[in-house]
Amino acid sequence: MTGRRIVLTRRPSAREDFDCFEEVEGPVPDPGEGEVLIQCSSASVDPSMIPRLSVDTYAPRFTIGEPVQSRLVGRIVQSRCEDRAAGDWVLCTGSWQEFVVADGTATTPIDPSPGVPPEMWLGALGAPGLTAYTGLELMGLTAGETIWVSAAAGAVGSVAAQLAKARGAACVIGSASGPDKCRYLREQIGVDVAIDYRNGDLADELRALAPAGLDVYFDNVGGDHLEAALGAMRIGGRIAACGMISGYGAKGPASPRNISEVIIRRLRLQGFLVTDHDDLRASFENEARALLADGRLAAPMTAFSGPAAASRAMAALLGGAEKLGKVMITFEE
Amino acid sequence: MTGRRIVLTRRPSAREDFDCFEEVEGPVPDPGEGEVLIQCSSASVDPSMIPRLSVDTYAPRFTIGEPVQSRLVGRIVQSRCEDRAAGDWVLCTGSWQEFVVADGTATTPIDPSPGVPPEMWLGALGAPGLTAYTGLELMGLTAGETIWVSAAAGAVGSVAAQLAKARGAACVIGSASGPDKCRYLREQIGVDVAIDYRNGDLADELRALAPAGLDVYFDNVGGDHLEAALGAMRIGGRIAACGMISGYGAKGPASPRNISEVIIRRLRLQGFLVTDHDDLRASFENEARALLADGRLAAPMTAFSGPAAASRAMAALLGGAEKLGKVMITFEE
Repeated sequence: MTGRRIVLTRRPSAREDFDCFEEVEGPVPDPGEGEVLIQCSSASVDPSMIPRLSVDTYAPRFTIGEPVQSRLVGRIVQSRCEDRAAGDWVLCTGSWQEFVVADGTATTPIDPSPGVPPEMWLGALGAPGLTAYTGLELMGLTAGETIWVSAAAGAVGSVAAQLAKARGAACVIGSASGPDKCRYLREQIGVDVAIDYRNGDLADELRALAPAGLDVYFDNVGGDHLEAALGAMRIGGRIAACGMISGYGAKGPASPRNISEVIIRRLRLQGFLVTDHDDLRASFENEARALLADGRLAAPMTAFSGPAAASRAMAALLGGAEKLGKVMITFEE
Repeated sequence: MTGRRIVLTRRPSAREDFDCFEEVEGPVPDPGEGEVLIQCSSASVDPSMIPRLSVDTYAPRFTIGEPVQSRLVGRIVQSRCEDRAAGDWVLCTGSWQEFVVADGTATTPIDPSPGVPPEMWLGALGAPGLTAYTGLELMGLTAGETIWVSAAAGAVGSVAAQLAKARGAACVIGSASGPDKCRYLREQIGVDVAIDYRNGDLADELRALAPAGLDVYFDNVGGDHLEAALGAMRIGGRIAACGMISGYGAKGPASPRNISEVIIRRLRLQGFLVTDHDDLRASFENEARALLADGRLAAPMTAFSGPAAASRAMAALLGGAEKLGKVMITFEE
């Protein structure tokens, strides 16, 4: 018996060069004592993976000739761990393979139900959702405030915008590329204003929308977006920085040219990674599941399958045209 | 009777073009009801004044044909305010004039004594000192930590470095330009390590000095200094930003090219202005005066006088060669 695996063949030579994956067949590994064999249904495709195709970041770069790794969901098909049973759905970190062996205790049981499919644990109920929650917690967003969420049609941004609204933000501004995504933001995500960042000057638009200044900016983009925010914050405003996709894979790093606004406007810029905030997971899941049950949390997902799934998914993260919400690849066809 | 005043004649045409002041004689104004006439002994020359020669910042730009303004110390020569008496030393904000009229209640009485001259209220006991104190408070610097203070021979940096040491920082790294200032930092300011930033690579030096990473960076410089810090912080490190002199008067704004380190290293970058933190003044003055009395707080000052005082003082802020500590002009000759 064999299974598919998605292997990195070389380092990308340019920002949007993702023709560097190959789908190969490999033997299905045997679980050892304490391990489980998982049939992977979907694997998360994260912006943070893009730089790791080339360089070390906060995580080491991926190895050529081996499958890349991310968060996976799947079903246990064989268990040698007494706390896990065949048939259980689990979430784990592992290689992009149809069949994955994992330490049983390193897997997280999940409980899919109608309307709450397993893939949601890669998105709104998973690390992207917890990232959104953590950012709002770090910012101390309070009712009545004005917040801008960039990449608001993305995995993190879509949850951040909805959680902000649920917490009583007076005005949630969401930005995305193109009229389709902006319509989605207004109709499904419930933002108060959607900005198509490809039209017009972001900073001018933000200053017009929030003449008293933004209280909070949730930055998923960096670069020109961060620059626009720096010029549109109120005095004492806060910025949560959890991703700077504008710089991923780019040759030149993306830097705002107006960093001195941090002083002029007395801003707090707080970088964070969700991996440091597992302590928030329980409270996050309570809040998110309650909103899901009420129909107040839309959890968009875009899944790619087939031999070119990996490169198409990565390109979608950057280009965005065919992407809405959480991007993943699926081994189900 | 007339008095000297220092007037802005035009906007600077380049970063180090300070040949834009003129000393003129003008009439001495009469104080109105509630006002005092002050004979100004010294006026603060602040980095934040440099951009204001050209543009609005958090404060409006200076007016051509009129004296520039800053913090002044002087002695009341005539009082029409019942709470102030002729002979009192006071601190106030006002125009660069030998004789200044001020609202009496807007002046702050000061009590110079041997070893604590009035000028010290422009420096270590004034806004620069409170800036240093505020930055350390916002950073929550604790004993045992490693801190880098840039422009450590300057008005703010010299106090920040000494307060940090007094609070038990395990390692205070101070940077300045040239061997003389570095010797001063070691011998008078008591830093553990002095870096001449004109020699070698700042980021490499910092990483070698603090292999576990900097806990705190007190940024007075911005630009390449902030960039070096971003690459040398520990995970979870904190940066206080109160000045970015590297960008003042420069054509191109100074931006770090590695702003994504804020995420990679989960940093907090906090901009602040001392004017927001008057609530800290009493506790600051207690701490600073106790250290002064113990001989543990050196308060370097550089005073310029004569017709070219203003342009020489501004140039000294940027070039630094003839400057140590607080820069001021004095009307005493």
